[in-house]
Amino acid sequence: METLVIVAHPQLEDSSTQQFLRQAAKPLEKVVWHPVPKTNELDIMAEQTSLRQADRIIFQFPLYWYSAPASLKIWEDAVLTRHFADQAVDGALVGKELGLVISLGTPERHYAAGQPENVSLSQLTVPFQALAHKLGMTFLPTLVVDQFGYQSETEKMQLLVRYQRYLTQESLGHFKDEEAWLLTRFQDYVATLPAEQQTQASLLLDQLTANQDQLAELQATIKMMQDTEDF
Amino acid sequence: METLVIVAHPQLEDSSTQQFLRQAAKPLEKVVWHPVPKTNELDIMAEQTSLRQADRIIFQFPLYWYSAPASLKIWEDAVLTRHFADQAVDGALVGKELGLVISLGTPERHYAAGQPENVSLSQLTVPFQALAHKLGMTFLPTLVVDQFGYQSETEKMQLLVRYQRYLTQESLGHFKDEEAWLLTRFQDYVATLPAEQQTQASLLLDQLTANQDQLAELQATIKMMQDTEDF
Repeated sequence: METLVIVAHPQLEDSSTQQFLRQAAKPLEKVVWHPVPKTNELDIMAEQTSLRQADRIIFQFPLYWYSAPASLKIWEDAVLTRHFADQAVDGALVGKELGLVISLGTPERHYAAGQPENVSLSQLTVPFQALAHKLGMTFLPTLVVDQFGYQSETEKMQLLVRYQRYLTQESLGHFKDEEAWLLTRFQDYVATLPAEQQTQASLLLDQLTANQDQLAELQATIKMMQDTEDF
Repeated sequence: METLVIVAHPQLEDSSTQQFLRQAAKPLEKVVWHPVPKTNELDIMAEQTSLRQADRIIFQFPLYWYSAPASLKIWEDAVLTRHFADQAVDGALVGKELGLVISLGTPERHYAAGQPENVSLSQLTVPFQALAHKLGMTFLPTLVVDQFGYQSETEKMQLLVRYQRYLTQESLGHFKDEEAWLLTRFQDYVATLPAEQQTQASLLLDQLTANQDQLAELQATIKMMQDTEDF
């Protein structure tokens, strides 16, 4: 699976959030990190070719006035030509996935009815959901990064894993795929260890793999119990 | 009441919809027609001064990818600085009105659940509603202009009146204000007639004015009946 991350941030180099995410994406194969080009450097054909090659397309941006920064809209209005986008003509993006990675300066919980912002991110991203619908794409759950500057080291490490999963894990949101994704990561890690540590790590890996089926079964049982529960 | 119409359209001169609306706005006093300046000509202070002077602010644009064209977002991101917009700091826009005039290439009825676009304009404009909320502004009902090119001459005349009312009528959506608005228009028109026709027109005007109270009463009665009706 190929992932294209289209990053729209007016001060990309100065954003610690974006630089952290860039480092997190760096080791990932099949992930292309693509800042939105300046308007006078925008090559529409090249952008369209990149989009065709991707299976998952991510719009990554800080929320400015309840939407993406203007640079992403410039890109949308220029690159998503009617011919390219129309399902009945080219339909270049049909069947692909569209995800949003949104960074916030305020806590995510502020985006809810009765909270200071009074609307949810699911409401604010309706134009992107409609875009995905129009292009024949599947809209992914949004990954929110709120108040990065206030996060602890542990939270940042958790964010790194969440972000890497968001860019590379097939079938986002399914427990079994999440497990499989983590095991693959762990296998890659074990392969980098010195020989004497590999043996022990491999045993651990085998155990984890064996546990996976059990975990999936447990998960299914819990889900069944939840479904029949009164609430 | 001063109204500022901020027009965002990439081909403003070539748009028959926008040129029609421009002509409709022309005779109106206290209405400023203001196309979004080019990025390199954007004078933030001048824009902010215009905003301060207005009581009603209109964003007028064709819907591009379920939002305004990029030029309006460039304007928003540049002009609505934190200092200017923040209610706790300057709060320059508190108490003013924000309205949208949106033109569509497809019928307005396509924007509904189950229809081709599957979302409503009320959903798509949530980012603007959130902006109004944040700035302490009142969000007005949106004026939609759909498929202008297919409209009959009568429909265009009705649109002209609807648009003029949208820009100048105080308390939009109240029947009594609508009547008052129409009578004022008619008075202005009578004043432009030759003397011999004025007499007759004035009689008609007096009759209409007298009818206004009756109409308002009738309207109130109908509303009361509707409120008590089963449905």
